[in-house]
Amino acid sequence: MGIRVADLARRLDGHVHGDASVELTGVATLERAGHHDLSFVANPKYLSGLRNTVAGAVLLTESAAAQYSGTSIVVRDPHAAFARAATWLHPPAPVEAGVHATAVVHPAARIARSAHIGPRAVIDAGADIAEDVVLGAGCHVGAHTRIGHATRVGANAVITHGCSLGCRCVVHPGAVIGADGFGYARDAERWTKVPQLGGVVIGDDVEIGANTTIDRGALNDTVIGNGVKIDNLVQVAHNVRIGDNTAIAGCVGIAGSTVIGQRCAIGGQAGVVGHLNIADDVTITAGSLVTASIERPGVYSSSLKAEPVEKWRRNAARLHHLDDIVRRLKLLEENSKKSS
Amino acid sequence: MGIRVADLARRLDGHVHGDASVELTGVATLERAGHHDLSFVANPKYLSGLRNTVAGAVLLTESAAAQYSGTSIVVRDPHAAFARAATWLHPPAPVEAGVHATAVVHPAARIARSAHIGPRAVIDAGADIAEDVVLGAGCHVGAHTRIGHATRVGANAVITHGCSLGCRCVVHPGAVIGADGFGYARDAERWTKVPQLGGVVIGDDVEIGANTTIDRGALNDTVIGNGVKIDNLVQVAHNVRIGDNTAIAGCVGIAGSTVIGQRCAIGGQAGVVGHLNIADDVTITAGSLVTASIERPGVYSSSLKAEPVEKWRRNAARLHHLDDIVRRLKLLEENSKKSS
Amino acid sequence: MGIRVADLARRLDGHVHGDASVELTGVATLERAGHHDLSFVANPKYLSGLRNTVAGAVLLTESAAAQYSGTSIVVRDPHAAFARAATWLHPPAPVEAGVHATAVVHPAARIARSAHIGPRAVIDAGADIAEDVVLGAGCHVGAHTRIGHATRVGANAVITHGCSLGCRCVVHPGAVIGADGFGYARDAERWTKVPQLGGVVIGDDVEIGANTTIDRGALNDTVIGNGVKIDNLVQVAHNVRIGDNTAIAGCVGIAGSTVIGQRCAIGGQAGVVGHLNIADDVTITAGSLVTASIERPGVYSSSLKAEPVEKWRRNAARLHHLDDIVRRLKLLEENSKKSS
Repeated sequence: MGIRVADLARRLDGHVHGDASVELTGVATLERAGHHDLSFVANPKYLSGLRNTVAGAVLLTESAAAQYSGTSIVVRDPHAAFARAATWLHPPAPVEAGVHATAVVHPAARIARSAHIGPRAVIDAGADIAEDVVLGAGCHVGAHTRIGHATRVGANAVITHGCSLGCRCVVHPGAVIGADGFGYARDAERWTKVPQLGGVVIGDDVEIGANTTIDRGALNDTVIGNGVKIDNLVQVAHNVRIGDNTAIAGCVGIAGSTVIGQRCAIGGQAGVVGHLNIADDVTITAGSLVTASIERPGVYSSSLKAEPVEKWRRNAARLHHLDDIVRRLKLLEENSKKSS
Repeated sequence: MGIRVADLARRLDGHVHGDASVELTGVATLERAGHHDLSFVANPKYLSGLRNTVAGAVLLTESAAAQYSGTSIVVRDPHAAFARAATWLHPPAPVEAGVHATAVVHPAARIARSAHIGPRAVIDAGADIAEDVVLGAGCHVGAHTRIGHATRVGANAVITHGCSLGCRCVVHPGAVIGADGFGYARDAERWTKVPQLGGVVIGDDVEIGANTTIDRGALNDTVIGNGVKIDNLVQVAHNVRIGDNTAIAGCVGIAGSTVIGQRCAIGGQAGVVGHLNIADDVTITAGSLVTASIERPGVYSSSLKAEPVEKWRRNAARLHHLDDIVRRLKLLEENSKKSS
Repeated sequence: MGIRVADLARRLDGHVHGDASVELTGVATLERAGHHDLSFVANPKYLSGLRNTVAGAVLLTESAAAQYSGTSIVVRDPHAAFARAATWLHPPAPVEAGVHATAVVHPAARIARSAHIGPRAVIDAGADIAEDVVLGAGCHVGAHTRIGHATRVGANAVITHGCSLGCRCVVHPGAVIGADGFGYARDAERWTKVPQLGGVVIGDDVEIGANTTIDRGALNDTVIGNGVKIDNLVQVAHNVRIGDNTAIAGCVGIAGSTVIGQRCAIGGQAGVVGHLNIADDVTITAGSLVTASIERPGVYSSSLKAEPVEKWRRNAARLHHLDDIVRRLKLLEENSKKSS
């Protein structure tokens, strides 16, 4: 099922340097590519890898291609072109329609004819599973939850009752969508649970990482926009709203009722406290903590950088006296003024 | 199954302003509430929402009620009152007693007659499941583990062997209770596993979030007190002890053998290193790292705050030279003394 | 199935002080040990516990044993000796060979005769399960994945297609190995998924904690070396490589393509950004963020320490003006030079 370099270039709106007749059958890194593999260079620092590659063709920018004697396909954005080409050369395995004999499907659930329901999956009453959906082994879809066209749910993932997923989403294994939000009222020294009555509404083309958790809303819904990409082990609390095409890296925590704009990028292990508004096009660097709303696009950070521990401890110890240090500075400044 | 405003006020020890005869059938936010919904305002900054609401009744403090012309129920603590009222208006779905045909129950396990064992649940030898317990689809209860009265365990959660859960607990989907603690002895350059022989003992009215992990003890048990509330993706290491009514937000990590007091509140993504003692009534702010025992109640923090990245980088770069900076300050101070 | 003190000392290359004929049947802490339990003291600060213990024998260093009148076994490293002795006294439960009737095994999977396949486990086509492997209830092994000799996989863990685990590994419940890496190309304002075509290759004697996630590589594999120990809720991104005998504590995140050396120790909640190289024998303290490659062994840190919040807020507020503060200092220094 290969693609000729000429045909691939046409589909990618690129042009060919070199032998346009080569047939490509797969993708690989420059180092590992064989004569029928497509490779790419997006970052100029990896251009040296071109010297020894025997790749069938390489996706390159115009300027990079000028330095390469092998076959290349010149495109504006080699990484984006590679993403598309790799999907054509390695399409997801075809779905075998049908409900596995060991799946437990409630008679009042609706399963589209082309859907694939894996072994041991459990689907509760009123659930609605659209065409071309794939539910992995052991996953659970709660009552009255809707799964849109061609969405794939990984093994042992759990989507509880009353939630809704759009089309073409990917939910990775172990993810939990729709568990109760963390809502309690303090009643003397004990906590009284506030029933969590909202749902989770997820748009189209959303990806949700392995063991990530997205809680249901307290009264209104938790809402994830179209095209949002969420990595593994991310916590999205109740009533959070995330705008279209925002990407969230691993181990991020977003506290309750925070609203995040479109096209944001949140680095790994970053945290956002509750009840904030984050504008569109905001980037948060890895490990940062956002404690106040952000009104303007831009990059925000509170990341520190590990250094040798003896050096760090001396500096950090001073940090814990910084207010005193500034007072000493102020005193010197005042003395200096008097004496001048 | 509604409740009249007058009756609700009586059950909540409150009094009514307005029409006490309205029948309430559900709860909602001020914006979405209909004529038969109960709503509430706990935070004065949301009082403006009263202007346009058509809620059947609103739970308010005395002073807020004075400003509202609609029907209100005046209570001391509107949020706590709402938590209780919402549970009465939206009680958890009734439990259907019985063991699903696809559950795998060891003949030497004891299942109380009123318990609900979901599809594909697996219950090992010697497990003891009390009355009114609900075990969700695909969850696993290990050998000789006891689950107390009316506790609910979510889909695909795992509770390993030799653990004990109290009454009325909620364990959310994907949580893992009783995996081995992270215990090794260094033997030259390799690690030798230390068998983890303790269990996990969990009190009554405890809630454990989705995909949270609580490890079994090495020799003694890991212990979670009564009324403790733990959010999603929290790691509780071996031999940790958590006091009654402490609340722990998402993504927190608590290292081995640390003892946490009663009524503590630990903010999201905070960390507590091992072998510490944290007093009762301690609050840790989000993202903070606790590296030493805390002997007194109070709020503790090492949280930073994200700011625009260019500004942050200039400041953070200085932090990495803070010790030198203070030495320069000291030199100036000495010079200043000499010259004065 | 006890062991006499004399025999235990011989197996541990130690010698006995006191009664070498005592039969030991278990292990316990000093406080809880009975007359037939083995205990140990590794940390001198716990030596006071020797006063009241009735343990059958205690593993001690030579100097500690000199202070103890009860029976002790003197060894060079009491903790390492205890780890081994505890495994002898509490061996893992014997494995019952065979495939549970409710497991779903593809006819084209190969299951060794002595392997134990638990209830509801699902094993896909081409999977290869070696002798003495234990697969827990509800776990999933994807197509063409190989599980090496005597490896144990916990309940509801997921290992997707095309991965490989070595011998004697332990995978704890809920772990997900081989989910797609977080790889997208930006295409205007949307994200295009980059197919994740690599696998995960895991060495021998590796332990992987509960609900931990290890993503498959994009083109090449994600690689975990021999003897690596990974705690709960850790995220290992695509194409990461971790060297032999490295230990990673809970809640750590390691971003894509980072290479970590041998015998490293990464503290809880630490983060390592992508595309870095970390040398052998590097220790990262809890909560630190590594943002640049580390070329030399040693301890690295950016950990802060929580302190009372009013004090912390005053200091942290100054940090956000540190660059200005240093400018003020510089000005004073210049004035001081001029005036001297």
